[in-house]
Amino acid sequence: MATKTKTMNDLFVDQLKDIYYAEKQILRALPKMAKAAEGDEVRKAFETHRTETEAQIERLEQVFEMAGVAARGKTCEAIVGILEEGKEVMEEYEGSDALDAALIASAQAVEHYEMARYGTLKAIANQLGMRDAVKLLDQTLSEEKKTDELLTKVALAVANRKPQRAA
Amino acid sequence: MATKTKTMNDLFVDQLKDIYYAEKQILRALPKMAKAAEGDEVRKAFETHRTETEAQIERLEQVFEMAGVAARGKTCEAIVGILEEGKEVMEEYEGSDALDAALIASAQAVEHYEMARYGTLKAIANQLGMRDAVKLLDQTLSEEKKTDELLTKVALAVANRKPQRAA
Repeated sequence: MATKTKTMNDLFVDQLKDIYYAEKQILRALPKMAKAAEGDEVRKAFETHRTETEAQIERLEQVFEMAGVAARGKTCEAIVGILEEGKEVMEEYEGSDALDAALIASAQAVEHYEMARYGTLKAIANQLGMRDAVKLLDQTLSEEKKTDELLTKVALAVANRKPQRAA
Repeated sequence: MATKTKTMNDLFVDQLKDIYYAEKQILRALPKMAKAAEGDEVRKAFETHRTETEAQIERLEQVFEMAGVAARGKTCEAIVGILEEGKEVMEEYEGSDALDAALIASAQAVEHYEMARYGTLKAIANQLGMRDAVKLLDQTLSEEKKTDELLTKVALAVANRKPQRAA
């Protein structure tokens, strides 16, 4: 059975490379999203998440080390698509009153992708008995969930914002 | 201000078209994933979600009607990327013991994308005072969350499965 080569350990490393690439792309996208945002609360949320993302990348590098593999990304078509869509929306809504809501929608799609990947990684790490890795992955997973909740709150604040500009 | 044309209503319709396209792609991908699955519990989860997806598409058509817009999808780069990645993983892990875990990981990425979109749509519908739409969108959102939880359980069952095949 020549095809039966891939193991759970391979899946762990593949998913790790996928999210490592994704995080690096997100790190590049967040300042653009922060710059585009109209409201202070939206911009601040993106800037805070940028700082968090840096720490999350460092944690991933620690997990790579625990797995005995060099930290290297692998093109993640999913995040490419999600960010591409976010960029389109940003351009389409530029200058409109719905821009911040559109930016938040894009950011939440990113958060959910991260939640899915870290959830999978944590489950596999658990299965492989990598306790220290589980701890680090769980820390990031909790941060992603909190960021998603924060964005929901910010979206509500944006919705209740009074129109500030003259037509 | 010629650029200031997009409204929250436009964002609602755009996101609706996005997830409508996405759901139709998911509907086509699920039977392939079910066919590829090794374990009965995994295949069954995908088949059940296929049936749910059909109902979710019908609900979206009702929401389109409520918004007074023809039900039409718009290419969603995000789901294209997510499903493309899922297809790659499916091919790479074919015949391996980690195939079902890999399929579940892909399915959970899909679920999370849907959760993000339905969460946004529900929030905007709320803001626009579309109570009946909120109800329908919330129904689907709850289903997506349940499917995600089910997949987490199935992943655990797969992890505890004894190796069944000889090397």
